[in-house]
Amino acid sequence: MNNQDLLNRSLKSVWHPCTQMKAHETLPLLPIASGEGVWLKDFEGKRYLDGVSSWWVNLFGHNEPRIKAAISEQLNTLEHVMLAGFTHAPVVQLSEKLGVLTGLGHCFYASDGASATEIALKMSFHYWRNIGQPEKNQFLSLQNSYHGETIGALSVTDVAIFKDTYAPLLRQSAQMPSPDARLAESGESAEAYANRCADFLEAYIKQHHADIAAFIIEPLIQCAAGMGMYSSVYLKRAGEICSQYQVHLIADEIAVGFGRTGTMFACEQANIKPDFICLSKGITAGYLPLSVTLTTDKIYEAFYDDSVARGFLHSHSYTGNALACSAALATLAIFEQDDVLSKNQTKTAYINNQISTWHDLPIAHVRNQGMIWAFDVQTNNQQFQRAFYQQGLEKGLLLRPIGHTVYWMPPYVISQDEIDFMVNTTKQLVTACA
Amino acid sequence: MNNQDLLNRSLKSVWHPCTQMKAHETLPLLPIASGEGVWLKDFEGKRYLDGVSSWWVNLFGHNEPRIKAAISEQLNTLEHVMLAGFTHAPVVQLSEKLGVLTGLGHCFYASDGASATEIALKMSFHYWRNIGQPEKNQFLSLQNSYHGETIGALSVTDVAIFKDTYAPLLRQSAQMPSPDARLAESGESAEAYANRCADFLEAYIKQHHADIAAFIIEPLIQCAAGMGMYSSVYLKRAGEICSQYQVHLIADEIAVGFGRTGTMFACEQANIKPDFICLSKGITAGYLPLSVTLTTDKIYEAFYDDSVARGFLHSHSYTGNALACSAALATLAIFEQDDVLSKNQTKTAYINNQISTWHDLPIAHVRNQGMIWAFDVQTNNQQFQRAFYQQGLEKGLLLRPIGHTVYWMPPYVISQDEIDFMVNTTKQLVTACA
Repeated sequence: MNNQDLLNRSLKSVWHPCTQMKAHETLPLLPIASGEGVWLKDFEGKRYLDGVSSWWVNLFGHNEPRIKAAISEQLNTLEHVMLAGFTHAPVVQLSEKLGVLTGLGHCFYASDGASATEIALKMSFHYWRNIGQPEKNQFLSLQNSYHGETIGALSVTDVAIFKDTYAPLLRQSAQMPSPDARLAESGESAEAYANRCADFLEAYIKQHHADIAAFIIEPLIQCAAGMGMYSSVYLKRAGEICSQYQVHLIADEIAVGFGRTGTMFACEQANIKPDFICLSKGITAGYLPLSVTLTTDKIYEAFYDDSVARGFLHSHSYTGNALACSAALATLAIFEQDDVLSKNQTKTAYINNQISTWHDLPIAHVRNQGMIWAFDVQTNNQQFQRAFYQQGLEKGLLLRPIGHTVYWMPPYVISQDEIDFMVNTTKQLVTACA
Repeated sequence: MNNQDLLNRSLKSVWHPCTQMKAHETLPLLPIASGEGVWLKDFEGKRYLDGVSSWWVNLFGHNEPRIKAAISEQLNTLEHVMLAGFTHAPVVQLSEKLGVLTGLGHCFYASDGASATEIALKMSFHYWRNIGQPEKNQFLSLQNSYHGETIGALSVTDVAIFKDTYAPLLRQSAQMPSPDARLAESGESAEAYANRCADFLEAYIKQHHADIAAFIIEPLIQCAAGMGMYSSVYLKRAGEICSQYQVHLIADEIAVGFGRTGTMFACEQANIKPDFICLSKGITAGYLPLSVTLTTDKIYEAFYDDSVARGFLHSHSYTGNALACSAALATLAIFEQDDVLSKNQTKTAYINNQISTWHDLPIAHVRNQGMIWAFDVQTNNQQFQRAFYQQGLEKGLLLRPIGHTVYWMPPYVISQDEIDFMVNTTKQLVTACA
């Protein structure tokens, strides 16, 4: 097998996600043969530093022996059993651990992240219906938010390129001003802007709360919007406002959970307890599809009844798949064994120190939160995004700018040498492509 | 670990799918420790014949060595890489094989079955928009149909207990009369009834086709409706009608694909080529979550353009997961190595022969299609469903009636002795519970 053969075959047989396939006439697909640590290797032996953690899922590198061992061990006991009427050890152990870590519980599983969003939305709506307030059936989200692309998830997503086409299929939802600090007025601090956005949210919810089931939000970072970071003040106030006006707060931590923002979950930084948390991506450290929605005892109890129809009858065939749960358990174990969050702080400081020496680059809004960094490149090059991506791959660095925003979201196991390579190559790429 | 401990912990930490959790106060959850062939084993060593293939996903039994070996081998090369911009051998090989088997191609992957439905609906709508017919944005499905429970999938599902609660969240779709042969009038043959339903479909589509994007259907069997089987005549005519009036036919083979109906895919029995096929469940033989939507060159080409917005930009993080694809490849290999479809015919004949000796049971509509059997129990026992399920487990047989419909959907590896046990125990249960 070689690169050219496999890419030709892939173009014929696979419809790649989030892709205008015609673009691959001039931008070659890259076939990957194997992975090791932060590196992906193609069929010709060339390697690429996975600076985006394979779409923000990989935490501890490719070919991680402990996760492999956990999956292999589970393969030898029980790969899967239906979770309606049945249960098994990995799903129970994982649920208990996630409950402790989030302060929520009652884990409802699926496999796609979008399904976790759908579950939270349906559960919130159903809760209000069960307690006699069916008129609370509207959803709020932030401008520029991303919560997935199935019809329900897309209805609260606000990225035009993903959403506009499908408008006739979508139920209306309202979008609140994004607290993304880049949108602050000149001279306005991130915190002041966050408060201004929270004031708007408060006024809106005060007026409309009787109709609103839930406000769904990506805590601290709107990732798909181009790593739009915002003050935790907004999150804290959103929690207070939702609580005051009896609107559920759904924390979509699918992208930011599992240490990405520096804490295990982003909500911790605002010291809030949302009504729902949605998790996926890093939950298996990038090994297997798994998603979960956690909620409170109060919400769970509103479904607990003699009436079947008051139960949450949603299901997916592979709900709570034992192999995926075992990968997730191994992932949580590594967080403890390797003292990951603490070690990440050292890496964060090291990278921030490197960036602080950058002076002559045409970049703005340099920002960091935990193990995510981003900056916006000031350029008139219409082809910047593509040129940066392509030249990065030529140099062995996988980064995928979002518009003019360049970001790093590397696996946590990235070493100092690998950081140096990523940082220095990025600097060269900005200079070359801007 | 023991049963009681794990079930108590599960009830506290896991929100089980498709379950009114209060029911478990009197109907114990069953913790499963391991699996082997058609058998599931609990923590006290008691074993249960998995007569529903763990929600219709397991094909070749639990602990299947070849699937385990395939996953283990893939674990040692590449567990996962993002599929936007990248590709890998398992996803290409699987896509090529599925293309050959279905006569379609351009595999678009997700993990939950509902996501495959969502992808087909969005793709169909987007196709018509891309070719300048955005008014074709309505969807049709059958009465009593099940296509998943995310908001888009639920909008074309027609099972009241899953759908009614969420009506305010759902876009309207139209439901056509179900050709389920049980709904035929007295003396009317399944085929005649199917034709009558097809006449209705034709009249409806003739009148409304200008607004209709797609008709989504479970080919041959409406499984969640209680294994409602129907004549292939309906499927054949649906294909012709959709083709004549330029309405897409979406074949949701999530439950019936991969040999369940006797042919690899149910559509083969009507000799039709739908515009979309959705697959999941059996695709990995019950090992890992994976779903896929396949379509035609014609539809693919309508998205192939210089405009990014005309592309299908949908995505899921774990799209085309290499471990799941490797399990699916192993599954397809077993179909060939073990001559599965041919051997299943022998099992089908054996079971049908057994049933033919049943004379004194209060059952109606005894029906079979491939490796699915069902009959409806005539009883006034309001607790029939629960009693049958619970007493079945006591006897070591896992069956889950849908209302008064008892069905078998065993793993294909079920042996003659195991069949005898399943059939004889079922007979006893019907007598005891009716």
